[in-house]
Amino acid sequence: MRQSTTTLEFRTSGRGLTEITGPIARWVQGSGIVTGLLTAFIRHTSASLLVQENADPAVQRDLERFLARLVRDGDPLFEHRSEGPDDMPAHVRSALTPTQLAVPVLDARLALGTWQGIYVCEHRTRGQVREVVLHLLGE
Amino acid sequence: MRQSTTTLEFRTSGRGLTEITGPIARWVQGSGIVTGLLTAFIRHTSASLLVQENADPAVQRDLERFLARLVRDGDPLFEHRSEGPDDMPAHVRSALTPTQLAVPVLDARLALGTWQGIYVCEHRTRGQVREVVLHLLGE
Amino acid sequence: MRQSTTTLEFRTSGRGLTEITGPIARWVQGSGIVTGLLTAFIRHTSASLLVQENADPAVQRDLERFLARLVRDGDPLFEHRSEGPDDMPAHVRSALTPTQLAVPVLDARLALGTWQGIYVCEHRTRGQVREVVLHLLGE
Repeated sequence: MRQSTTTLEFRTSGRGLTEITGPIARWVQGSGIVTGLLTAFIRHTSASLLVQENADPAVQRDLERFLARLVRDGDPLFEHRSEGPDDMPAHVRSALTPTQLAVPVLDARLALGTWQGIYVCEHRTRGQVREVVLHLLGE
Repeated sequence: MRQSTTTLEFRTSGRGLTEITGPIARWVQGSGIVTGLLTAFIRHTSASLLVQENADPAVQRDLERFLARLVRDGDPLFEHRSEGPDDMPAHVRSALTPTQLAVPVLDARLALGTWQGIYVCEHRTRGQVREVVLHLLGE
Repeated sequence: MRQSTTTLEFRTSGRGLTEITGPIARWVQGSGIVTGLLTAFIRHTSASLLVQENADPAVQRDLERFLARLVRDGDPLFEHRSEGPDDMPAHVRSALTPTQLAVPVLDARLALGTWQGIYVCEHRTRGQVREVVLHLLGE
């Protein structure tokens, strides 16, 4: 049993999902590990890691619209607004969606379902550079 | 240190929780691992894995009622409705609840609290067969 | 590769966040593990583990206000109220926020971002003692 780690950076283009399945899968395949566990951790409190449908882009637009209605920018409920009306909503979205994901590795591949992709979910209105730490163990 | 993997299938009976603690616990016990970490991953974007109270069945009904009110079937906000009015709500519910769980193993048992059970949370109105990949490491 | 486990107890003071980064980081550092994966699991269905901003305390107040508005105490929707009007809302909050977190360990430290802290998120109105099981693997 052995382990490997790396940190990847992804540039988002504002709110919504940025697919990162490809870069993660390539790093896993390059490790030579056939059976194991991949853990991804995002080093931010205003972006998340989501597993979502990778087929119809409307799913991503609908999810963003739902979150925007659930957690309203500039809601007078919020006291913390040092970085603007989307600041505290980003933290709330981050609390309601995952900071970390673990995916088993089987036959040298991520054991994702047919319709599953891994995404950075950006919660700020402007694009950001987001760091994702990967940890892989197995043999 | 060693690892073991398997894939279990569970048939749900429509929206709500299906307890899967028993089958997971039996597989862990059969592995002979005394101390370790069990990770479960559901290979779908319209069902989740939840740890919830295992005592009063009313908790499960209340949770389903809450989710049904929070994410309304047929909401005109949603563009993606290729599989019906419960299609996009299922993806939203899946974003708000876990795709993956990890539970430490102590003394050859899952280290769950007294009132905790592990459940498949079905988000489609019709029952489905759901695949859960398990990864166990330890010694 | 080796592993280590422990169980820590934290007393919360009612709803809101209690930071637990320090005790977890000290336990990780005491283990001598330089590269690895730390998993934390909370043994309750009315409290969660959150990664949140550790800078402005207003973030924590705003998050609590948001959750209190999203999941109302005493909501007539809820049937389960054996422990009072905050009983079922606590289970719903627990379904919408994590029961478990995994954080990579790099250079003998938790690979948290600059603004990230680990918190117990209490969902009951009264303070409780909460058990968090830690599992660490690495070398």
